[in-house]
Amino acid sequence: MTALRFALAQVNMTVGDFAGNSETVIRRTAEAAAAGAQVVTFPEMMLTGYPVEDLVLRPAFRAASQAALTGLAEQLAAAGLGHVAVIVGYVDDDGLPRDASAFLLDGRVVARQFKHHLPNYGVFDERRYFAPGTTLNVVRHLGVDIALTVCEDAWQEGGPFTVAGAADVGVVVNINGSPYERNKDDVRLRLLQRRAAEARAPIVYVNTVGGQDELVFDGDSMVIAADGTTVMRAPQFVEDVFLVDVPVTDAPDSPAEVTDEVLTVTRVATGASPAPRRDPEPAVVTDRVPDEEEVWGALVVGLGDYVHKNGFRSVVLGMSGGIDSAVVAAIAADAIGGENVYGVSMPSAYSSEHSRSDASDLAQRLGAHYREVPIKAIVDAFMDPLQLTGLAAENVQARIRGTTLMSLSNAEGHLVLATGNKSELAVGYSTIYGDAVGGFAPIKDVPKTFVWALAEWRNSQAEKRGETLPIPPNSITKPPSAELSPGQLDSDSLPDYAVLDAILARYVDGDRGVDEIVAEGFEADLVQRVARMVDAAEWKRRQYPPGSKISFKAFGRDRRLPITNRWREAPRPA
Amino acid sequence: MTALRFALAQVNMTVGDFAGNSETVIRRTAEAAAAGAQVVTFPEMMLTGYPVEDLVLRPAFRAASQAALTGLAEQLAAAGLGHVAVIVGYVDDDGLPRDASAFLLDGRVVARQFKHHLPNYGVFDERRYFAPGTTLNVVRHLGVDIALTVCEDAWQEGGPFTVAGAADVGVVVNINGSPYERNKDDVRLRLLQRRAAEARAPIVYVNTVGGQDELVFDGDSMVIAADGTTVMRAPQFVEDVFLVDVPVTDAPDSPAEVTDEVLTVTRVATGASPAPRRDPEPAVVTDRVPDEEEVWGALVVGLGDYVHKNGFRSVVLGMSGGIDSAVVAAIAADAIGGENVYGVSMPSAYSSEHSRSDASDLAQRLGAHYREVPIKAIVDAFMDPLQLTGLAAENVQARIRGTTLMSLSNAEGHLVLATGNKSELAVGYSTIYGDAVGGFAPIKDVPKTFVWALAEWRNSQAEKRGETLPIPPNSITKPPSAELSPGQLDSDSLPDYAVLDAILARYVDGDRGVDEIVAEGFEADLVQRVARMVDAAEWKRRQYPPGSKISFKAFGRDRRLPITNRWREAPRPA
Repeated sequence: MTALRFALAQVNMTVGDFAGNSETVIRRTAEAAAAGAQVVTFPEMMLTGYPVEDLVLRPAFRAASQAALTGLAEQLAAAGLGHVAVIVGYVDDDGLPRDASAFLLDGRVVARQFKHHLPNYGVFDERRYFAPGTTLNVVRHLGVDIALTVCEDAWQEGGPFTVAGAADVGVVVNINGSPYERNKDDVRLRLLQRRAAEARAPIVYVNTVGGQDELVFDGDSMVIAADGTTVMRAPQFVEDVFLVDVPVTDAPDSPAEVTDEVLTVTRVATGASPAPRRDPEPAVVTDRVPDEEEVWGALVVGLGDYVHKNGFRSVVLGMSGGIDSAVVAAIAADAIGGENVYGVSMPSAYSSEHSRSDASDLAQRLGAHYREVPIKAIVDAFMDPLQLTGLAAENVQARIRGTTLMSLSNAEGHLVLATGNKSELAVGYSTIYGDAVGGFAPIKDVPKTFVWALAEWRNSQAEKRGETLPIPPNSITKPPSAELSPGQLDSDSLPDYAVLDAILARYVDGDRGVDEIVAEGFEADLVQRVARMVDAAEWKRRQYPPGSKISFKAFGRDRRLPITNRWREAPRPA
Repeated sequence: MTALRFALAQVNMTVGDFAGNSETVIRRTAEAAAAGAQVVTFPEMMLTGYPVEDLVLRPAFRAASQAALTGLAEQLAAAGLGHVAVIVGYVDDDGLPRDASAFLLDGRVVARQFKHHLPNYGVFDERRYFAPGTTLNVVRHLGVDIALTVCEDAWQEGGPFTVAGAADVGVVVNINGSPYERNKDDVRLRLLQRRAAEARAPIVYVNTVGGQDELVFDGDSMVIAADGTTVMRAPQFVEDVFLVDVPVTDAPDSPAEVTDEVLTVTRVATGASPAPRRDPEPAVVTDRVPDEEEVWGALVVGLGDYVHKNGFRSVVLGMSGGIDSAVVAAIAADAIGGENVYGVSMPSAYSSEHSRSDASDLAQRLGAHYREVPIKAIVDAFMDPLQLTGLAAENVQARIRGTTLMSLSNAEGHLVLATGNKSELAVGYSTIYGDAVGGFAPIKDVPKTFVWALAEWRNSQAEKRGETLPIPPNSITKPPSAELSPGQLDSDSLPDYAVLDAILARYVDGDRGVDEIVAEGFEADLVQRVARMVDAAEWKRRQYPPGSKISFKAFGRDRRLPITNRWREAPRPA
């Protein structure tokens, strides 16, 4: 038994930025080499960013990816880093587009591994883009047989890891673009433990960190030994290079011949002599963090990366004094600094005094900019020709606010944030082109009850650190209201949020039928009413801004439902 | 050689409306039976509607589809129609979800065929939903071997049609949900001719007609003989039952044993005696119509079905006096009647006199409702607190108009139509939450140059029929302008539309690289500028309303690009 020193480059990349992403690889490889790393592993699609969606369909893009790979190998060598093995993801094209991993050494591409299992569920459309690989590439380097795999290969029973086990490999490297999802069961760890057992070898799992439109990647890179032990585990949402000495078995003199109907083992040797033995130094093993902390991290990274990668420097949002805008503002302040957050209070005739005072309190706590734009005169200007009443009169207020925020965005260059939460979005409790305007919607996948939990967690963190509480306690405790008509409360139109969220978790996230939900003890009429509200709001959700996915099933590409749809579930008659 | 009388039920169905769709099958079967039909074929997913997207993931929905099928077989028998063979599409679930076709007779399900080729490109995500079938079901009925296939099975080389040929079948039935796409090459006919040759048998191809969100189905059902002759061809966009006597070879006494690695031939016999010989009566063979007529038909059906299937009775739109709103209004008048169209002129300080007169002329020509809501006072109410200039001042006018239309929708119940065309949407020449508001965008997939062509074609049709021209000639001839600042013309910001559309056809619809487009003779700086405008407008397109797809590649599910995207093609230096 010897130990190879791996560096897991848990880094952030940007879709389409071949030059910038290559530069990151070179910089991080230099850092890893200085720390004695022998193999540096980067995430899936490191050079292209991930996911690139229909960019894959453009021949020019695929050619650029292949050119970036060979260019990178040369640049690494030119920088004196040719002796370090680098494993890096990119898009290949051997006549068919491939989600690929390359093994680089001495200025050359030693091996190219194509992803075998192509996910085509949830947010993934990889059958749309790629042809599956049918080889398992094993690179003999420094006396160790290193097997290459990509992401989903680790999520399916059988396939590459079983074949790797039969091929007597010393270690399996699995590069990932694995999006964050709330998950108290530590599914990744359990999967990797199973795969390590199948491979009878340690697994080096490296994942990217950062935001790309609606997806947030949390890192959580790790090394799992063949017996399931966690050798190393990186913190989530932190961009860094993590070093780990991975105990590996030496490559056998005559490795097993593997016959598999689907995958062919392809072996290549770099010619490097076996590495001298070394005693493994202990590596970092990060503990799991509480749910709220993890989600907060995802939301901060998701928003921050959307802002920066799209060339914005600041955000603007309506501050209503309520909990949703308070939490969004606090996330924004954590992501890009309070000084880059612009809050606008837009009181109407129905706005309470506390809506203004809580909003200004919020801005002060965050060090955010704050201004008031009263909308009463604008409302009157609409009312005069249109004579609106009821819902139309309520909505016009929200739309004036939306137009005001967009005007400030046009005039001052801020990204507009929509402040709606998942519960509202589910039942259509928002005004399209009103509070729904924005380039990004940070909490669109956060249920209302969890918005409160996040607020309390964030304030408690501040309290522990002796800092100002970012969120006005009054915004947490007061009853939620849209304040679009006199004395209006959310509870006038919606069930209690705890009940609503419980039903939504089943109907939306779980695709459970109305009958099944009723069987769990929820009131039949209520379940049916909620299901109908969800179905009827599909058209609004289609036009809602993107926002970070944190749940098993987020609105957007994760849940694709027709707008025109007469399917209405009714509870079975008792 | 005998002839079986088929009825091709080119009908419209609604997603999720199991009761209504079953009722359509029974009514149309009765009609066909009265005309002597022996086999009645309905489209793919007749019972569920198509496409149902993630509804397939719900166990309750799949169970409802299976129950609807067995219920339908019983209802047909109860209605005295049990003796007529009915072939109908639905969703099956034999442990895995299936895109299926059933052969019904005498109150029973005689055979269930699962779609073999599952498209996962363009607008299709069928690998997300279905498992592929691995059998080819051949039903011996009335002395003829009838092979069952579903849609995409006819679009791929090899597979079911080749196997059907080897199995000596008498006829192949192919049921479809095949969306309309502009296509001057008559691809469907050529494909079916190839499949008929492979199958060595005639093909009965039946397609649905109607709109479902962004897709429009054009019918174009047909019967192609083994030698490629068109035996029957139905008109596009017409809902009806088309009868055709299909000459078929008798079933052989001992059919060939077929060994195929992928598909197993499964044979079943209904026990019905061979049909008496009959001389085929000639059937309708519809000629192809000009491009403009075909597209106009698609747009009328797409909008009409969106309105009706979503429970609306009327539409409202801004009438600017320009060509886009004129064409949208004329489509709406053709789809739901001019009396259900509500036009609103919303002049600002920069509106020309002709913007009003052309708008009111349009409404009069269509018999549409018309009102004026001047927005100057509302603009002033925004200007006062916000002091807007430049782009912000332009956009606020468009957003006031959007809010006005939404207010009228809220107050009066109309569906709001967005009037943007594909060229504008491509380059981002529209105001999000302004002219982009709406529940549906009828011409979002129509390039500006083709908007003019459609207007001229529609007026010429009216002229031929001696009717009032629906579109004011002045709206066709005047130079396009957004009228958001003094004297503004589209040509101030955009290239000539003929050039722009030619570049967009290559960059957007064709996924061609900047270099390739330049090589065709387009000016390099211009191509690059257009490509950048297209890339930068992705975030706006995400929030744009749905509208009918008529092109090879429509914005929406057909073209899935990241918003966060630094991939910028530059022409190769000369």
